[in-house]
This record gives sequence, C-alpha cells and structure tokens, in this order.
Amino acid sequence: MPIDEPRPARPNAAPAPASQQGMRRQNLALVLGAVAAHGPMSRAEAAAVTGLTRAAVSSMVVELMRDGLLVELGPAPSGRVGRPGNALRPADTGPAGLGLEVGVDHLAACVVDLRGAIRAQGRVAAANRGRAAGPVLAELAALADGVVAEARGLGLRPVGAALAVPGLVDGAAGRVVHAPNLGWREQQLPRTLLGLELELENEANLGALAELWQGGAQDVVHVSAEAGIGAALVVGGRLFRGARGFAGELGHVPLHPDGPRCACGARGCLEQYAGERAVLAAAGIGTAGGDWIALLADLAADGEPRVLAALEQAGRALGTALAGAVNLVDPSAVVLGGAYAELGEWLLPGMCRELAERVRVREWPESALSVSGLGRRGPLLGAALVTIRRILDDPGAVLLPG
Amino acid sequence: MPIDEPRPARPNAAPAPASQQGMRRQNLALVLGAVAAHGPMSRAEAAAVTGLTRAAVSSMVVELMRDGLLVELGPAPSGRVGRPGNALRPADTGPAGLGLEVGVDHLAACVVDLRGAIRAQGRVAAANRGRAAGPVLAELAALADGVVAEARGLGLRPVGAALAVPGLVDGAAGRVVHAPNLGWREQQLPRTLLGLELELENEANLGALAELWQGGAQDVVHVSAEAGIGAALVVGGRLFRGARGFAGELGHVPLHPDGPRCACGARGCLEQYAGERAVLAAAGIGTAGGDWIALLADLAADGEPRVLAALEQAGRALGTALAGAVNLVDPSAVVLGGAYAELGEWLLPGMCRELAERVRVREWPESALSVSGLGRRGPLLGAALVTIRRILDDPGAVLLPG
Repeated sequence: MPIDEPRPARPNAAPAPASQQGMRRQNLALVLGAVAAHGPMSRAEAAAVTGLTRAAVSSMVVELMRDGLLVELGPAPSGRVGRPGNALRPADTGPAGLGLEVGVDHLAACVVDLRGAIRAQGRVAAANRGRAAGPVLAELAALADGVVAEARGLGLRPVGAALAVPGLVDGAAGRVVHAPNLGWREQQLPRTLLGLELELENEANLGALAELWQGGAQDVVHVSAEAGIGAALVVGGRLFRGARGFAGELGHVPLHPDGPRCACGARGCLEQYAGERAVLAAAGIGTAGGDWIALLADLAADGEPRVLAALEQAGRALGTALAGAVNLVDPSAVVLGGAYAELGEWLLPGMCRELAERVRVREWPESALSVSGLGRRGPLLGAALVTIRRILDDPGAVLLPG
Repeated sequence: MPIDEPRPARPNAAPAPASQQGMRRQNLALVLGAVAAHGPMSRAEAAAVTGLTRAAVSSMVVELMRDGLLVELGPAPSGRVGRPGNALRPADTGPAGLGLEVGVDHLAACVVDLRGAIRAQGRVAAANRGRAAGPVLAELAALADGVVAEARGLGLRPVGAALAVPGLVDGAAGRVVHAPNLGWREQQLPRTLLGLELELENEANLGALAELWQGGAQDVVHVSAEAGIGAALVVGGRLFRGARGFAGELGHVPLHPDGPRCACGARGCLEQYAGERAVLAAAGIGTAGGDWIALLADLAADGEPRVLAALEQAGRALGTALAGAVNLVDPSAVVLGGAYAELGEWLLPGMCRELAERVRVREWPESALSVSGLGRRGPLLGAALVTIRRILDDPGAVLLPG
C-alpha cells in the first residue's frame, strides 16, 4: 500500500461496514484534519470547514481532547463579532512520528509531533558506501534510540517509523531493490525498529511528500540530490510511482550518450555530470568525507572560480535533464530539493537557462523552477510525517478504545 | 473533459440523481459494454459477466436491440449443457464514429462501427507543412464527406467525430496550441465538422488509446512517429496528460545537448536524430514527398547500406531517449507505434540495445519493447473509437427517447 495513502485501520480485516462507528471515525478524521491543516480554530470554524454540525464537532473534540490529540489554546483571536470560541490545535505531546534516514555519508533520525514540528533530532556522519545493511541499521537504531528518549522526555510517544533510503525500494516487501550508492541490492530490511512498525521509502519521494504536505504544488518534478541524484514525480497532489514503483530515476537519464561510464553500468548518465563525484572533481576537491555540500557552498560564497564553474556546469546538466523530464511529464513546477537546495544560489541560474532554452514547444515561465525551503531536511521530515499523516487520516486508530 | 473519460449525458445539466432511470442507463452501459468487450455472448453469459439478473439483462437487451445497438446472431456456440442462448453482439449498422487525421504529409478519415471495425476509409497525400488551417480542414471535410457517404450506404450513422493532430492541443477549447511540423500555433479549429461535434486530440495520444482499447498494456510509453516524434504515456490504463495536457513530447527531449538546432528552437532534440528529415538525410534521400516510410522500408528490405545505417542510428537515438523516459516514468512496456511501426524490423534492434544498456538501475526485459500492430492506422482508428467508446459508456445518450 502506498506510503501516502490512508490504510485500513485493521489490516487484513474485512472492510468496515458503513456503520455509525465508521462514520464517527471518519468525522474524527475530518475534525482533526481541518484543525491540523488550517491552524488554530474554534469549534464553530471547524464546523464551517468540515460541514459538520457544531454539536457533532463538539462531540468529536471531546474525544480527541480526551485522548490527547487536540488541545485548547484559550479564546481564538477572531475579528468577528459574537462570543469568541476557544481555539483548538493539534497537541504537541502524545502520538508522534519517527523519521529515519540512511544517507551515503550520514545517518539521521527525528521525531515530529502532530503539528508537524520537529521536536528531537540527531544526525551523525557515517561512511555507508559499500557498508552492509546490518551494521548500518544497528547504528541507526542506536541513534534513533537517543532521539526517541529525548522525545519521550517531552511527552511524545512515537507510534510509527519510516526510513528514507537513497535508492529503489519495494515498500510492501520492506526491501531495498537497488541503492547503487550504498551498494545494496535486493536487501531485506527489518519490519520493525525499536518496537515500531518500520516503513520504507525512496528519499526523493519522501522529500517531495514533505513539500507537498506543507502546501507545495500539485504537479511537480522534485529533484533530490546529495550523493546521488533522484527525483520524485508528484501528479495531481499524489506521488507518481510508475508501473513498479521505480519512477523518478533522473540521475540515470542519459545526458551525453557517449559519456563516461556510470556506477549503474550505463554511459553518460546525469550523475556523471552533476553527482557528488563529478562536482567535487570539477571543483578540484578530492572526494573528502564530511559535509562537502557545506564546503562547496562556503567556497562558492568566497568566489572560488573552479567551484563556481563546477556548480555552473552541474546546474546546466541538471537543467538539461530536467528539460527532457518537463517535455515528457509536463509538470507545473520543478523544485530543487535535498542537500543541493543549499547550493541553489549557484545551481539555479544554469538550470533556469537550460530549461528556458530547451522547453520550447510550450511555455515555461522562469518562476516554475524553485528551491525547496526544506533542503536536506526534506526526506527525513517526510519520513517522520508519514506517521503523522496516518494519524490525521484515521485518529480512531490511535485513540484508546472507548 | 479528457477524451478518454465518459462524459455526462446532458452537458451543463445538474448531475442526474441516483434515480431508477439513472440506474437503467448504467445497466444499459453494463450490458452493451460486456458484449462489446467479451465478444458474442448469450443473455445468460451477459448476466454472469455483469452481475445483473437474467431478467434485467433481457430487458436491457430488448431496448438495445430495438434501437439497433445490439443484434442477435442465432444460437451461441456453447459447450455447456442446457438450452443454448442466442448470441448477442454489437450491431454493425447504426451509430458509428468518424475518425479524422491531419498529418504533415497526408489527410485521412475513417468510419468505425460499434464493434470497432473500420468500415469506410480514405487517405490522400497532402503537403500540409506550413499550410493554413482553413484550407486543410476544408480538404479534410471533403475527404470525410465521401467516407461518411460510403458508410451511410452500409447503414452506418456517424454520431461524433474526433481529429488527430501532430502537436499539442487544448481539447476543451478546440484549439491547437502548437504543432511545429504543421507550423500551427494557437490555432482555433471549428467545433463541428459535417454537422458532427468535433473533438480534438494529439495523434500520439489517440494511437495509444487505440492500442489500449484493443487490450494493450496498462502502463506504456507509446511512441508515435512519422514526420515528428511524439509519445503518449498510459498510466494505470489511462492517458497521462501532465499538468497542462502537454505530456509526451519525446521528440524534444535533449539527446545530444550541443547538437543541431531543432525546429522548436532548442538544440539536439531527439527529432534531430530520429525524425523524418534526419533519417532521410542520413539515408541519402532528398526530402521527397510521397510515402517515404514505405520507400525506406523497401530500400531497407533490399539491403541498401545507407538506409540500414540511417535506421540503425535512428533506432539507437530513439532507444537512448526512451531509456531516459523509462528511468523517469517506469512503464511496464514501450510500444513503437505510428508509421515508424512499419520500420520496426530495422529500428527495434538499436532501440532494444540502448534500452538494455541504459536501463540499469532496475530490470528491463527485452520483451517490454514491442511494435504496435496498428502501425500508422493507430491514431486515425483511435480518433474514430473515441465516439464508439462514448456510445459504449452511455448507450442511453444515443437511444431514441422511450
């Protein structure tokens, strides 16, 4: 079942009949969802947004407050006449989501509350290229354990986890199909971590979902680049996964068909021109460990000519490949996300120019290209939000039985 | 409203209530659809396929036969015991669809009956490159008039028309947005032709729909090439149109970013390597009019070395661009359609090789690439089938009132 879709509350059970209890559960989701999406609001406003009666909203609110999903802020600031209602917002304690990330050069974990705010996080450098999955997951679990302990100290209780991986995944099977930059192929991962159910997703997809869930555009090619280059396609407000769930492999689109051999085995893939190694080599920097993105940004800000030229070339390569993607899938926006977002100042001009020059059969406004405000936090945040979305989609599933 | 979606029976009217009449109309569509999709069948079989009672099926059949949408063939050949039912099939007279096509080098029209069979057709050579839309449509109407007259002689009555255009269209507005090879830009077309409502669609999309409606795969990149190179993306059994309806511009995916200037204004587009002019030039043939596809096929069959090399090169260019498309949108199949399908014998090996070499991050079986059996008839047949699909989706709309 796709990670961005509501799931049945009781897996493998027969679909619930359209009972009164089923309707109540749906209404709980309506009320909590409205409050989460549209900020602090009174019961009257929630009734207006959801179309439910005030009495029904009040009844749902009692239940949601009792179980700690909603809290009351005091009188809502309202310009309107009449008795001000108490403003409701999602709780900043109670059920929470754990986000996890295995990068090529790092591991990360964070806990997000019902409002979507990151409340605890940790990130460590880690040389994961070619490292076996077992020790990587063990180190990640240790990191996550500390982050979860910190979150518990704040009154948060993670109820699910999702893991961002830089590669193709089979989420239903809990398996990494191919992550070339990690060297993982057909790698089964554990289905739980720290006692929480663990979901698996491609990091570019999670970065795109984080943007989308925070109000981003509905038809997007979302580029996510750090060590590798991936993309997520968002179509009509949903992830587009392709026939087998492998859509978005922008890094392996041929850029110069006779170019150098890529790690994937093909020639002249985009990654050979805009990936980590290509950019560092063009910039005259050895493949140093550490935060090479921050290093490049520092050197570019200092006006280092080779670095500026390297980023210009990478931007043009990205723009050329994206022009092909735009001609093929016709998005309304292209977003540069992942760690490369932090290099946006230097990558964007070249990307912009190539897109303008190569998307000619239809209009392509310059404003259609932008940088994600989430940057490298996108995939990790998206992973944590998976659980938050599940709660918002069906709060009845986490409420204690009557 | 997308051309491949059922439309409300009374445009601009309020949605029909879930009335008895609405249900009857839905059941008419169920019965006619089942018979059309699964071949001649008895009432009992139709009841089994649709889940309706035999009585309900019989009642629908009476109505569908009275108005000439269904006919009875006599006893159905059935291996089963019991009284054989009379086999039903869609009528080969009565309501029909008119398909129209404006190509760069030709005009075409055909009439298709409810079974999906082409019953009358015409095709004329025409030098449409740079020609104004008015005279082109006038010549097409004259051609269509003869084809419709022939169909009427067979007892067929076209009730709608669709036009295939080699370019980007805004179907809702009846406008060609940009057809570079015709030289049309923001070209409003008439909303009716020969008194029939005229729908407008990109020719690659119609070629893909023709394949799909005849039982093709559900997740496909369908290449349609003749003078230009387009593609249609079929996702989950539906056309994927993109945010503005312009998805599938495979011909303008950059193949060699620094290559020759394309008609679209960009450099190194696929069309510069696999389009008509590129192939004819590489084959040492002047841009002759006439059926240059058939000419190339003849010369290739004779083993003409320059022609073989030109087709090999075009196949490799197509395969390279398609590898990018496969990495991006992850289809389960790639189909070579349009007139190039007739060159499949010589194009496919190069396409196959490049796809195998460049789709490496996941499996790509050789069998996933195939040639459309419809060839250059695909878009025209698809155009005619648009009307047939509309009738099958809502036969109540063409039935005479009570």
